[in-house]
Amino acid sequence: MFSKSTVKYIQSLQHKKFRDEYGAFIAEGPKVVGELLETNIFNCTNVYALEEWIAAAPASLKATLGGTLVAVKDFELEKISALAKPNLVLAVFEKKPARQLAFKDRLTLVLDDIQDPGNLGTIIRIADWFGIQDILCSLHTADMYNPKVVQSTMASLARVNVVYADITQQLLSAHVKKYAAALDGTPLEKVDKLKEGIIIIGNESKGISPAIMQMADEKITIARVGLAESLNAGVATGIILHQLRITN
Amino acid sequence: MFSKSTVKYIQSLQHKKFRDEYGAFIAEGPKVVGELLETNIFNCTNVYALEEWIAAAPASLKATLGGTLVAVKDFELEKISALAKPNLVLAVFEKKPARQLAFKDRLTLVLDDIQDPGNLGTIIRIADWFGIQDILCSLHTADMYNPKVVQSTMASLARVNVVYADITQQLLSAHVKKYAAALDGTPLEKVDKLKEGIIIIGNESKGISPAIMQMADEKITIARVGLAESLNAGVATGIILHQLRITN
Repeated sequence: MFSKSTVKYIQSLQHKKFRDEYGAFIAEGPKVVGELLETNIFNCTNVYALEEWIAAAPASLKATLGGTLVAVKDFELEKISALAKPNLVLAVFEKKPARQLAFKDRLTLVLDDIQDPGNLGTIIRIADWFGIQDILCSLHTADMYNPKVVQSTMASLARVNVVYADITQQLLSAHVKKYAAALDGTPLEKVDKLKEGIIIIGNESKGISPAIMQMADEKITIARVGLAESLNAGVATGIILHQLRITN
Repeated sequence: MFSKSTVKYIQSLQHKKFRDEYGAFIAEGPKVVGELLETNIFNCTNVYALEEWIAAAPASLKATLGGTLVAVKDFELEKISALAKPNLVLAVFEKKPARQLAFKDRLTLVLDDIQDPGNLGTIIRIADWFGIQDILCSLHTADMYNPKVVQSTMASLARVNVVYADITQQLLSAHVKKYAAALDGTPLEKVDKLKEGIIIIGNESKGISPAIMQMADEKITIARVGLAESLNAGVATGIILHQLRITN
């Protein structure tokens, strides 16, 4: 059981304004909640779960959770869930402060207004797959703690350092080579293998803004042999990172 | 203006059962509708549009549409739209019969139960980008005429030949090399450039089913240097096609 104000608080975390205000976010479902608890990078303040989940949870986990674990009924989980079909468990975690960006001796992804939470989630997973530690997001990029991003990234959200900042200022202070994903650049397979540098990915429909594009040292392009007008931003990021991290 | 039965008919096209029964599907928004009308591959039976769209449409297009163009009011478009925010125009098109698969002298993508319409749409666009003409889908793969697929593929839906069939039977009759995307195969960058063959992509959570995996000649794998458990199915398809069509 829980109070009306608890319900209101958890529901409010579906909105960025309140996630920012309370410094908290929600995760749902056994897989996502389980992974985030396991990585232990975000501090968990409460877990609301059906008896079914509690019965199946390992004793060690239950011991760790202690008083933060609250048994709820179906109708209660429905009230606080952001999912169309609530999935056994919902946890509230504290956001963690991002680390400052290093830029040296590493690849950094820069996202210039990626709008779709699904795309952001996909890109965070790709970064984690290819061992990219840092993502710099423009202030208009989707929020990494949006429930849709959390659901699609799982533990990658804990492992990748995602920083929101004025990307123009950050790029000015980053003394490494900057590559911009564009339609009219050097074909990817002709770019040297990258161990250090910045790769800039643009907005889904507008691409990279002109001011940011001007700051790039080189444009890079995915060769096209067919007729599609564009590739999904996540797909493009995956192809670029595979080529520059693995193949070249 | 339109009748109640017209509203019911168009609403029914949001469901596969009725798309199959009527051999029709819907597309929405100026960009998608415009592109599908332009490619002229699907026969358009009706366009329902706000005055704003009609006023902006080229005279030549309006002449071609003739009596199939119906002016509607906001509240009418809302009734027939599958979008949360209706977007000026909705068109009904006839599905087209798929061409038989050739397999020889080309790359063919095989999708083994891709469930998410968004992923299917992304994959059709990727195929179109890399000049893949044929996609063979298992009978449990998402429907290519699902409104979400139509919205995300745009004209690629008209250009790529998407076939739904028993993939076991089709693979038996395809006398070309078969590659399966897996976690334990040959690293992509060591596979020869492909001009002919089949690339099999599995379900988002279960991967390729064991029976289909057994029919593969070689497993291929995207190298991982980080910790993410998996890549999105669309992203994996993009990386594989880029590597095998462009890089190798």
